[in-house]
Amino acid sequence: MSGSGVEFAAQASLLTAQSDVVSAIRDDALLNSSLWVNVALAGVAVLLFVYMGRNVRGGRARLIWGATLMIPLVSISSYLGLLSGLTVGFLQMPAGHPLAGEEVLSQWGRYLTWALSTPMILLALGLLADVDRGSLFTVIAADIGMCVTGLAAAMTTSSLLFRWAFYLVSCAFFVVVLYALLTEWTAAAEDAGTAEIFQTLRVLTVVLWLGYPIIWAVGVEGLALVESVGLTSWAYSLLDIFAKYVFAFLLLQWVADNERTVASAGSTLGAAPGDD
Amino acid sequence: MSGSGVEFAAQASLLTAQSDVVSAIRDDALLNSSLWVNVALAGVAVLLFVYMGRNVRGGRARLIWGATLMIPLVSISSYLGLLSGLTVGFLQMPAGHPLAGEEVLSQWGRYLTWALSTPMILLALGLLADVDRGSLFTVIAADIGMCVTGLAAAMTTSSLLFRWAFYLVSCAFFVVVLYALLTEWTAAAEDAGTAEIFQTLRVLTVVLWLGYPIIWAVGVEGLALVESVGLTSWAYSLLDIFAKYVFAFLLLQWVADNERTVASAGSTLGAAPGDD
Amino acid sequence: MSGSGVEFAAQASLLTAQSDVVSAIRDDALLNSSLWVNVALAGVAVLLFVYMGRNVRGGRARLIWGATLMIPLVSISSYLGLLSGLTVGFLQMPAGHPLAGEEVLSQWGRYLTWALSTPMILLALGLLADVDRGSLFTVIAADIGMCVTGLAAAMTTSSLLFRWAFYLVSCAFFVVVLYALLTEWTAAAEDAGTAEIFQTLRVLTVVLWLGYPIIWAVGVEGLALVESVGLTSWAYSLLDIFAKYVFAFLLLQWVADNERTVASAGSTLGAAPGDD
Repeated sequence: MSGSGVEFAAQASLLTAQSDVVSAIRDDALLNSSLWVNVALAGVAVLLFVYMGRNVRGGRARLIWGATLMIPLVSISSYLGLLSGLTVGFLQMPAGHPLAGEEVLSQWGRYLTWALSTPMILLALGLLADVDRGSLFTVIAADIGMCVTGLAAAMTTSSLLFRWAFYLVSCAFFVVVLYALLTEWTAAAEDAGTAEIFQTLRVLTVVLWLGYPIIWAVGVEGLALVESVGLTSWAYSLLDIFAKYVFAFLLLQWVADNERTVASAGSTLGAAPGDD
Repeated sequence: MSGSGVEFAAQASLLTAQSDVVSAIRDDALLNSSLWVNVALAGVAVLLFVYMGRNVRGGRARLIWGATLMIPLVSISSYLGLLSGLTVGFLQMPAGHPLAGEEVLSQWGRYLTWALSTPMILLALGLLADVDRGSLFTVIAADIGMCVTGLAAAMTTSSLLFRWAFYLVSCAFFVVVLYALLTEWTAAAEDAGTAEIFQTLRVLTVVLWLGYPIIWAVGVEGLALVESVGLTSWAYSLLDIFAKYVFAFLLLQWVADNERTVASAGSTLGAAPGDD
Repeated sequence: MSGSGVEFAAQASLLTAQSDVVSAIRDDALLNSSLWVNVALAGVAVLLFVYMGRNVRGGRARLIWGATLMIPLVSISSYLGLLSGLTVGFLQMPAGHPLAGEEVLSQWGRYLTWALSTPMILLALGLLADVDRGSLFTVIAADIGMCVTGLAAAMTTSSLLFRWAFYLVSCAFFVVVLYALLTEWTAAAEDAGTAEIFQTLRVLTVVLWLGYPIIWAVGVEGLALVESVGLTSWAYSLLDIFAKYVFAFLLLQWVADNERTVASAGSTLGAAPGDD
């Protein structure tokens, strides 16, 4: 069970298995394009945001800018991870799954990197609405919980039951995030004088974020109503484009134009004396 | 060494190996029950805590509530990870270990998820005692170090020496946490007027947390004085029940009853103008 | 493709593969000594720093001390991970790489643990310069991005292109860190009255941190101009000694001697009433 030859073979194969996944991605034009388009757009977004933020001053405005700039940078890393085969793998679906016994290409790296990028989105939103730190902390913790249990749902192959159990726990974390966005944070934004832009970004975020669990449920990893890995991937990629780059662009443009409003609130994280 | 057939076999086997562990868990009633009881209790705790916190207002009180609510949510995810076989594996113990050469079922996911749940416990305690951010930050960093090196101790199979070296480093981090709880944080709680409840929760935490390294040392992963995986697992599960759900319940009940005291301190993270 | 025998063999081999790497390390005296010297020095540093910090009071000074103490503690864990074979592996270099097809010993654990230790260095520097939280947060996020994409670069074996793509993204994150250190943070340190020590530590950090990507580029993982794993490892180990223990020693000595200056700034994270 642990003969030295088999050991080396297994270890070597693990580390070279990336190439097999990469080949599979390259051979699927739909899938391949869904990933490269995001590398390109995220790259453009980084350059654009650096340019847009060049004149932003004041602790809170610059923190929003910093958090916003991280969004496309994390996104490039995420899509490079998928394209290089590092964060992608073939998973054998468990009994009961529509594709039971088949090996499905799982882009599990998406869930992993969302745990890094979505907190930046919430941080930017929270700072814009000038919410208290307690709320910001709880919502970001719930958001990370949502992504990590989403990752667990994607990687569980032992039974269908546990896949959906993780899915439900992930949705429970999501409800915490949604609840805060729709109640407290909206109220806080009104006090901070940022209600208008917050309203726009909130609708964008709530609507688009609802798309992710829906795609999971109908895509290849869930009920497999859509059986194409390429289509599922394009759906996620389109959501990413709007929920990340377009979101960040709108936010950053508003901050650049309304620095005074942003600076006057400044009760939360960004506040620092002698800085604005 | 990297023939394509072997590669695929190894990759496939990695991803289906979960089912083997799941079978092993299902066949061991003692082990199985030690995990399910926590899923059930954590689920009850989530519902109960949502209900108990429905009227909590004020930045700091709500931050304590938020941190407290995360404890059972992370716990459910943790135990689902163990039950689904995702964060469990058979590890071959190194030479010198009492079970040397045998494959021991390691619940390494426990250590991983403690790195998420125990910071919430310390955050709640720190906010209750109104400690300064420097102390809070250092203690949580040490706590995460403790969990991560505990994970490393559990996953090291190359030599007994390194298993215990990691164990000792983990204990060194733990000493930092204990020292802060017993000295500074106690003093801070007196200033904040929360000495009584802090005293209770501190005793609960210190006594129960000391149990974890002791179980590691005497259980299957350490000296194997207790050779049953099921018994070792039950010991951890019982500690979790008291150190997590009972702890969180006592804390939350007190916060709900003493909101005024909590709000008046509020010098740390939770403070936010216009929120209390 | 997933016969039960192969499954078990692969799982077992994964878990025992550590011993093979450990043997390889032990047989290479140069490599072995590069790791053990850091375990020893980090151990001495922990004891020394505990002693040096015994009289430090005041929220901000103690937060700097706490962050500083974590640096060698994380370092010990990191080097134990390498020595135990837990965070080390043989990776087959992709086509186009100078060592293409060969299995190179990759110390990927270094990049992983830098994601924990370098934020502590930046936190200590940021607190010393009394920078605003926005800047501190953005710089630490960029630093973690740098380490994680460095880890991805090291672990990518599917193609040379992606290895260097990750390398470039990692460098982009590094530019954000460098830019902040050389402009804003320097200005902040002047306002805080800590310009002199900040200047020394900044030069130490900037010069030494530039060394890491250079070593990656010329070492076995990059262009392989240096083909010895032992020499590459010693280069990293020497950088670690100066960028971590010497850095931390100088910082801590200054804080212990200039507590009054540190306490009077205190506008950032460390501030807490009734604590200094």
